Amino acid sequence: MSWNTFGRVLRFTTWGESHGPAIGAVLDGCPPGIELAEADIQPFLDARKPGQNKFTTQRKEPDEVRILSGVFEGKTTGTSLSLLIENKDQRSKDYSEIAKTYRPGHADYAYDAKYGFRDYRGGGRSSARETAMRVAAGAVARKIIGGVSILAYVSEIGGDRIDPANFDREEIARNPFWCPDAEAAKRWEALVDDARKAGSSLGAVVECVATGVPAGWGAPVYAKLDSDLAAGMMSINAVKGVEIGDGFDAARLTGEQNADAISPGEDGPEFAANHAGGIAGGISTGQPVVCRVAFKPTSSILTPVASVDREGNAAQVRTKGRHDPCVGIRGTPVVEAMMALVLADHMMLHRAQVSER
Amino acid sequence: MSWNTFGRVLRFTTWGESHGPAIGAVLDGCPPGIELAEADIQPFLDARKPGQNKFTTQRKEPDEVRILSGVFEGKTTGTSLSLLIENKDQRSKDYSEIAKTYRPGHADYAYDAKYGFRDYRGGGRSSARETAMRVAAGAVARKIIGGVSILAYVSEIGGDRIDPANFDREEIARNPFWCPDAEAAKRWEALVDDARKAGSSLGAVVECVATGVPAGWGAPVYAKLDSDLAAGMMSINAVKGVEIGDGFDAARLTGEQNADAISPGEDGPEFAANHAGGIAGGISTGQPVVCRVAFKPTSSILTPVASVDREGNAAQVRTKGRHDPCVGIRGTPVVEAMMALVLADHMMLHRAQVSER
Amino acid sequence: MSWNTFGRVLRFTTWGESHGPAIGAVLDGCPPGIELAEADIQPFLDARKPGQNKFTTQRKEPDEVRILSGVFEGKTTGTSLSLLIENKDQRSKDYSEIAKTYRPGHADYAYDAKYGFRDYRGGGRSSARETAMRVAAGAVARKIIGGVSILAYVSEIGGDRIDPANFDREEIARNPFWCPDAEAAKRWEALVDDARKAGSSLGAVVECVATGVPAGWGAPVYAKLDSDLAAGMMSINAVKGVEIGDGFDAARLTGEQNADAISPGEDGPEFAANHAGGIAGGISTGQPVVCRVAFKPTSSILTPVASVDREGNAAQVRTKGRHDPCVGIRGTPVVEAMMALVLADHMMLHRAQVSER
Amino acid sequence: MSWNTFGRVLRFTTWGESHGPAIGAVLDGCPPGIELAEADIQPFLDARKPGQNKFTTQRKEPDEVRILSGVFEGKTTGTSLSLLIENKDQRSKDYSEIAKTYRPGHADYAYDAKYGFRDYRGGGRSSARETAMRVAAGAVARKIIGGVSILAYVSEIGGDRIDPANFDREEIARNPFWCPDAEAAKRWEALVDDARKAGSSLGAVVECVATGVPAGWGAPVYAKLDSDLAAGMMSINAVKGVEIGDGFDAARLTGEQNADAISPGEDGPEFAANHAGGIAGGISTGQPVVCRVAFKPTSSILTPVASVDREGNAAQVRTKGRHDPCVGIRGTPVVEAMMALVLADHMMLHRAQVSER
Repeated sequence: MSWNTFGRVLRFTTWGESHGPAIGAVLDGCPPGIELAEADIQPFLDARKPGQNKFTTQRKEPDEVRILSGVFEGKTTGTSLSLLIENKDQRSKDYSEIAKTYRPGHADYAYDAKYGFRDYRGGGRSSARETAMRVAAGAVARKIIGGVSILAYVSEIGGDRIDPANFDREEIARNPFWCPDAEAAKRWEALVDDARKAGSSLGAVVECVATGVPAGWGAPVYAKLDSDLAAGMMSINAVKGVEIGDGFDAARLTGEQNADAISPGEDGPEFAANHAGGIAGGISTGQPVVCRVAFKPTSSILTPVASVDREGNAAQVRTKGRHDPCVGIRGTPVVEAMMALVLADHMMLHRAQVSER
Repeated sequence: MSWNTFGRVLRFTTWGESHGPAIGAVLDGCPPGIELAEADIQPFLDARKPGQNKFTTQRKEPDEVRILSGVFEGKTTGTSLSLLIENKDQRSKDYSEIAKTYRPGHADYAYDAKYGFRDYRGGGRSSARETAMRVAAGAVARKIIGGVSILAYVSEIGGDRIDPANFDREEIARNPFWCPDAEAAKRWEALVDDARKAGSSLGAVVECVATGVPAGWGAPVYAKLDSDLAAGMMSINAVKGVEIGDGFDAARLTGEQNADAISPGEDGPEFAANHAGGIAGGISTGQPVVCRVAFKPTSSILTPVASVDREGNAAQVRTKGRHDPCVGIRGTPVVEAMMALVLADHMMLHRAQVSER
Repeated sequence: MSWNTFGRVLRFTTWGESHGPAIGAVLDGCPPGIELAEADIQPFLDARKPGQNKFTTQRKEPDEVRILSGVFEGKTTGTSLSLLIENKDQRSKDYSEIAKTYRPGHADYAYDAKYGFRDYRGGGRSSARETAMRVAAGAVARKIIGGVSILAYVSEIGGDRIDPANFDREEIARNPFWCPDAEAAKRWEALVDDARKAGSSLGAVVECVATGVPAGWGAPVYAKLDSDLAAGMMSINAVKGVEIGDGFDAARLTGEQNADAISPGEDGPEFAANHAGGIAGGISTGQPVVCRVAFKPTSSILTPVASVDREGNAAQVRTKGRHDPCVGIRGTPVVEAMMALVLADHMMLHRAQVSER
Repeated sequence: MSWNTFGRVLRFTTWGESHGPAIGAVLDGCPPGIELAEADIQPFLDARKPGQNKFTTQRKEPDEVRILSGVFEGKTTGTSLSLLIENKDQRSKDYSEIAKTYRPGHADYAYDAKYGFRDYRGGGRSSARETAMRVAAGAVARKIIGGVSILAYVSEIGGDRIDPANFDREEIARNPFWCPDAEAAKRWEALVDDARKAGSSLGAVVECVATGVPAGWGAPVYAKLDSDLAAGMMSINAVKGVEIGDGFDAARLTGEQNADAISPGEDGPEFAANHAGGIAGGISTGQPVVCRVAFKPTSSILTPVASVDREGNAAQVRTKGRHDPCVGIRGTPVVEAMMALVLADHMMLHRAQVSER
């Protein structure tokens, strides 16, 4: 795990800037013999791609992925998989102003402070465009973990939460918010649209649940499953918080309340609750693995904010460009992808150390 | 970063079980020429060590650290530092029952599911005793980062929060809770004592602030400073959530509210607020780095909880042993240590890539 | 360092098969602000590229490299560099026979044994075509290490060695063998041509010297400069041996003979000899870093060799295709590239740990 | 793999100086459930330990290893194994002179150039004493790889080679040289004794053969089995060259001579020869894995050599201390250990990627 690479055994490296000619990923360590074609990856990219409705950025990217290596006669060979997406709809002129001024909440100032300069077109390497490659790599990871099912959805936008009583898995794909509560989706339509029109933006909370993870994945002490999930989720653009299971709410329970009581079951122990989010001591327990991720509101807003330019003079910044009024929405498929990638890595790690001899 | 090793350039590896003969860490990559003696490390271990008052476990461990390598004539040589603490007060008889039964909320079942068996004495490798070595390694990391000052404190126990208006840095070391609010500390005394007497336990939230971190530490995209902090904090025993800056609260703000407006300052840009917690795009901005960590209530409680034994039969578990009624308290120095270790690693990473040529 | 990634701080990952649509590399960790364009890389690829004369494979590849990320306005940004070369002259029909039969000396059988199948077109991932990307990445590494000068040459083909008395640095680029001895180059012309016509092949020894490496690069114990060089060189296709300094000959000297006596010099110690090849205890001494690399004869020969097919039946294999009669020749720029990559990585590692404060 | 850590999945980290209180290793990633006690490790340490006869250093170290973690009720738990050996017979006074003067051929000058100073007692971290921990870790690795048998022996001292016709496996343990040729052993007795009396030293070549390695271990491209072996062997003190199979001799063969012809066998392909040393394309072929390692003559000799002191003044150096007249001899168990560690790591890597599903 380092710089632009994530993972231990199953490792992926991403490259590319928002306004460069292309973006890509190299996925290394993939098991051989897995059937894989662009068509296995494309649906996940389509789910994340921009310009699909007025609640996301109006940049139009077909996001067509090509597999350039590592597949032969329709199957993974076990060697490095190269995935590439060409950038089509860059409009660099939109960003001329940003070249000289630091957008508050953005990486502009930090990049300049670190590297002395930056690729300012569309945020360059700090753009959320990078996450398209996570989604592509995540689609491959899903094939590796087979039986595991991963589902992410938005549980909260601008402080307005879904009602668990309304939870309907089928609803998630029916609205533009990945929202499992039809009523909340309706409310969010007005909420997000108002923010967009006001030149403002909203934050969101995304929840992700992986079912079918067997007990035993994860490793003490610094490769804990939850530690790797936290690293993966926190590396997503705009993410400011990660919880496993009850997360911060667990800090407000007593020991008895928080204990997931165990009882004998037909296929092993059964748990009366899942406060732990399916992970104990960093290792999966066989319960659903549950993760919650907080996205801050998009920093690129039309409302002017005080800032400085590169020479240190005061400036007002209005970020024109084309931006998501709520980045958390398009972050949802990215959260799913990171869950898939971390789980696939840990499946392989587990297999390395503990064989079925 | 893998299994029992954490870090990229400055790496530490820990070993040892709660009831084995000793625990230890090897810290590798430390710069040469730093003055270092056991006396630089011991105060931090003393702050974390058990048995100091009725609000922590009654296990009595002197936790005396020895430096076995990597220091010559009082200075680090740049080679691997070996740190060792002997275990003195193991009472393995307390744990005989646990050998056969799974304690809910503990790693017992997950370890058995993974490895086929486990060292059940005091939790073995999954015990929080491992964190003593993080504190020791963290003390060395502090010397590496020199000018950076790190302060952690408990901001909430059992849902009872400190009042920011009462914040007094000096108060933190005066009470057994690392609490910066004298009034809250008084309330917590009753709260924690009641939980302890009731055979229950409480969760806590720990906040950590690092000041003096220059702009530019951290690296895109998978070595983001916040991503590494999240990994480090989530790997601490009992931690279930990590926030940077406003964390989950940022998800409830609008873009304008969340923007940390910038103005010209004498020594570079000045920020009107720090919602971002000192990190943008994964790179430090020069503001204080702020992290919040949620600790669940101690899983080891005297109150009986339903569980199963290794054969799958129903069982009631009361964890006798000697345990912290609120692990978050003793987790505070560990949070500080992880902050120091992540920052030192990133200072060195930054230096590797960006020299002052 | 793992699977398809090499390096510690400066890391590169390669992908691509001999007959896939393209090959590529991602170079991560590169310092920012280095002037870089395709024109800085192309000459090194041109030096390695196939089809230039009758002593190398007749495959015609322009090997035109494109930089797809990591450079902005002519300078490296410090983020991941993506380098890509399209494959143009694949002739997969040549390899139809190989699909079913194992070529002795090749990776065919080993890949099948490991993965269950393989991309047999041109050797797939095991093809020396992968080394083009090392040459491309190496060109960037040269810019990082600036003042260091790296020179590799062929010192021996088919057992016929150069005469050190004839060594002429200028001669190296004048003949198709990277041979610094004009007379040897003349002899090799006949030697290699005879082997080619006979459907045979020859081995070679390549020497590489890096001057200008300051004392202090390398790290104890498992990141020794010579250990990393050995790993890098041995990973080149067809390499079977690596020596540092006098290598195996040092095993035949006495301690006094092998000692590189030191005397006071104006700019630090001076050495009377360089049996050590510029490395002591894994760390550079300031003398030239010297490495020798043995290439076996090309395994793909027209002379039939006994083998088996995938079903285990006896078969005779004649490898038609288009092959180098002596792979060591085209390996020379690859050896240079690996030297550059290892040195650049260690320059950065050194800087991480030992600053100039 | 970095600094003081070696390996990818099975990783070990060593620490300790020649004259510090102890040396140690942490072996991480070990599979659970392997029976392990000190008695499994001690014989290998006894084989390497100093002071056993006049052909090795007269330092007397019992080299008694203790297992401090990772084993419970006689079996590995899958968590980090801590191994420790106390140093007993340090005589630091012997080294007072070395503090000020650089021993030619030693790491003295390079360490000072890198770190600004060094632990000069007995070479500190650059001492071959570190290799005791590799032997200890290697003993555990042997248990992991089970059916694989590893044998190393000295094939050459001071240029005097064994006669393959005299090869007798049983002879190896019967003489103080790990020599499989009784006649050569007799000659070496005089050879090494003469060198010792003359205050000189001799180099040696060690060969290592691993049988029972299944086809399929190793990974393209930068985790090739031979690349990792080269890194491991070259990291051993005093090693200057590594060959796989025929090594440099392969560079003098023609393609037909070097081809290991394959024929149908009962249990898979059979090979007519093993020029390749059991590795093709970086992956094991099922043949014996063969490695040859060149050790330079011990640099610590009584014969004076010209050098300089720390202030840059000319000096004559005679290294008194207690030294091996031929370090290659005691290097033999270390070569075996590194072979075991690399193979065990690759067995686990292979298992991670290619399961038996």
